[in-house]
Amino acid sequence: MRADAQANHDRLLVVAGVVLAEQGADASMRDIARRAGVGLATLLRHFPTREALLEALLRTSFDELTARADEVGTEGSPRDALMVWLREFVTFTTNNHGVVTSMVKAIEEPESALHASCVAMRAAGARLLTRAQAADAARSDVDGADLFALVSALAWLGDQPGLEVRAKRLFEVVMDAILTERAGSHTPV
Amino acid sequence: MRADAQANHDRLLVVAGVVLAEQGADASMRDIARRAGVGLATLLRHFPTREALLEALLRTSFDELTARADEVGTEGSPRDALMVWLREFVTFTTNNHGVVTSMVKAIEEPESALHASCVAMRAAGARLLTRAQAADAARSDVDGADLFALVSALAWLGDQPGLEVRAKRLFEVVMDAILTERAGSHTPV
Repeated sequence: MRADAQANHDRLLVVAGVVLAEQGADASMRDIARRAGVGLATLLRHFPTREALLEALLRTSFDELTARADEVGTEGSPRDALMVWLREFVTFTTNNHGVVTSMVKAIEEPESALHASCVAMRAAGARLLTRAQAADAARSDVDGADLFALVSALAWLGDQPGLEVRAKRLFEVVMDAILTERAGSHTPV
Repeated sequence: MRADAQANHDRLLVVAGVVLAEQGADASMRDIARRAGVGLATLLRHFPTREALLEALLRTSFDELTARADEVGTEGSPRDALMVWLREFVTFTTNNHGVVTSMVKAIEEPESALHASCVAMRAAGARLLTRAQAADAARSDVDGADLFALVSALAWLGDQPGLEVRAKRLFEVVMDAILTERAGSHTPV
């Protein structure tokens, strides 16, 4: 893609994210184009279908979460870094109702358009877990895929009507249980 | 319902359970009637729709799980009783793909036909948890509704293609973390 085409592409994605956040996943492609100040044809040249647009948005979010994992990995204690990132992950799933099902599916389906981004994000989380385990701040019998599955299950719970607050609390309870093998054993590295 | 009508009703439910287990939720009402040796009209008198039949089957299963909770509550240590029952619960959800979503929904919706059965089942599990907590064999900051939500989330995970084995293992990890506050603190009552 040429630099100006890439810039348009990125800007359309940002606008689409704003409009979809305001109006929900049913927002019309026409509205998105109007808000971006381009014709519908231009929007459709970048994203032929609403599905393609939603996928591109999710991919961007997953890639951002991957980058965030590498970023927080350089700050604070290994346990805190992992918790900070996991909380950002849960905030993302909370703000994107139903995304967790797409994510779990994409991980298991190599042909999915979201597969590579989801796998990379899971691997970034796994690196934070490994670091926490090396600091004796996480159970050693859980791997990155386990942690991802566990957090996804809690995110699914938070998606159920009436259970959002309970899911948030259970996230803390479970993470506390998983991430600290023995109370008081946090060894700073 | 007269005694013979009730007996027919119960027998139709048993046959429907067998046919649905064999053929999946799409099994035809006609097939179920044939296998039960009654006309379709008779089956439809008891269960006007496939949905009503599925609901009745689920209700029966929930009521059985409730009875089982009270039964295992009289056997073994409080921790073991709770684990035995939770494993039976997970076996049920594993054998009934998608049931966990209906269950979680029914709990939150008082107007649901499955609400009363689900609430009773959750209360039966909560009694086992309270008993385990009294024996210092479970975290005291988790209540029956939390435990139900947590196990439901793990059951949902087990419903995802490719994740059944991982979900089973995570169930053990999480329950181990939730049900024993401190290693070696199991106090028999």
